[in-house]
Amino acid sequence: MNVRVIPYTDALIPKDVTGKTAVVIDVLRATSVMITALENGAQKIIPALTVEEALKKSKDLNRGTLLLCGERDAVRIDGFDLGNSPLEFRQDKVAGKTLIITTSNGTKALNACRDAEKVFIGAFLNAGAVAEKIKVEKEVVLVCSGTAGRFSLDDGLCAAMIIEELAKFVPVHPDDLGLALTKTWQSENGNPQKLLKDSFHLNYLLQKGFSGDVDYCLQKNSVSSVPVFSGGEVLS
Amino acid sequence: MNVRVIPYTDALIPKDVTGKTAVVIDVLRATSVMITALENGAQKIIPALTVEEALKKSKDLNRGTLLLCGERDAVRIDGFDLGNSPLEFRQDKVAGKTLIITTSNGTKALNACRDAEKVFIGAFLNAGAVAEKIKVEKEVVLVCSGTAGRFSLDDGLCAAMIIEELAKFVPVHPDDLGLALTKTWQSENGNPQKLLKDSFHLNYLLQKGFSGDVDYCLQKNSVSSVPVFSGGEVLS
Repeated sequence: MNVRVIPYTDALIPKDVTGKTAVVIDVLRATSVMITALENGAQKIIPALTVEEALKKSKDLNRGTLLLCGERDAVRIDGFDLGNSPLEFRQDKVAGKTLIITTSNGTKALNACRDAEKVFIGAFLNAGAVAEKIKVEKEVVLVCSGTAGRFSLDDGLCAAMIIEELAKFVPVHPDDLGLALTKTWQSENGNPQKLLKDSFHLNYLLQKGFSGDVDYCLQKNSVSSVPVFSGGEVLS
Repeated sequence: MNVRVIPYTDALIPKDVTGKTAVVIDVLRATSVMITALENGAQKIIPALTVEEALKKSKDLNRGTLLLCGERDAVRIDGFDLGNSPLEFRQDKVAGKTLIITTSNGTKALNACRDAEKVFIGAFLNAGAVAEKIKVEKEVVLVCSGTAGRFSLDDGLCAAMIIEELAKFVPVHPDDLGLALTKTWQSENGNPQKLLKDSFHLNYLLQKGFSGDVDYCLQKNSVSSVPVFSGGEVLS
């Protein structure tokens, strides 16, 4: 299987994914949140690019079964029900609910993949399950969301972990970025905590007091489901 | 020193380098060619984005001291004096000459850096000299040219080698891509031949019969000069 890795959303041009199978990765924290919310019983997630779009979309929906969620600069948006911390998305909060989510990077990455044939949601939490889901494809594109228009190592290492998990099922031919990230991943035996200690976004979250989120998001294969993005919605 | 690594030219947006010090890297083969040509006595190099632009620029110059150089799909352009093989740019060919060069990726990368304050030309051949030249800066941007709109591992490893050489002089804080590439580089003790064996562009050149070029371009620190791109010209 040929595996291409996109370093960050701003570097993606639509034809990179048009008609293809893509996996969107935003480890810290949007895709980790989506996987967690659906695992905990949320009915569906509607990504929105902006706060305004989130509010507009919320008007058409039943407020009783709706949660407005999202962050800017890592912090919950004023007046929203939940932020972007996966630890907030507990079963007692989200079960049966429709979630509108707007985040700085992850929702942009999903939007950039709207012309892909299939879009799956990946993170360390479900990397093994993602590999099992896409192992039948001839070609996949792993889309690292990145942070503020730059490559973010947490997403890149997750892409490497998916490549490692894929290689358990099929011969994998990563592109040059996939090759580099695989070497990076293997250099510390697939230990994200060690590899990320000097990385930008992880340290930004630690400074903002989100160490619990970081620990949670760096867990590997704790979830066996793979959400799908289709028709503007993320579903389990 | 803060070091940012741009994965490939198409991912660069002008503000990434505006007013900054940039190093353009196209190991296979444009920047290796430029370094070699100037080392062998070429007077200057004028990069051109297209064949038409190269021909147009050549009309204003003295044909007797001029060489038209460049490739498309790795092969010399019809009617041009030289291709893009560094082994062609010998002293007896290039000494005292003005070279107009158009290549698929490297000349695009130079053009993308036209708003940088200073632009240096880097490759494995002169990575140590590049580090010595830029060690006084507070921030540098290492611009990997890439291949056909994608990250190319040869350029990324050269960025990692420049980071390694910089760290001999000053404390270096690479961005997340720089961190990943440094780990990749260290995983095989800075051996580009080993690290590049599955990479796309190197294997493309081998298939086209350019193994001599590849061996030449992967030599480390064989040249001590660092060309500068300024006013539309590359000079020693």
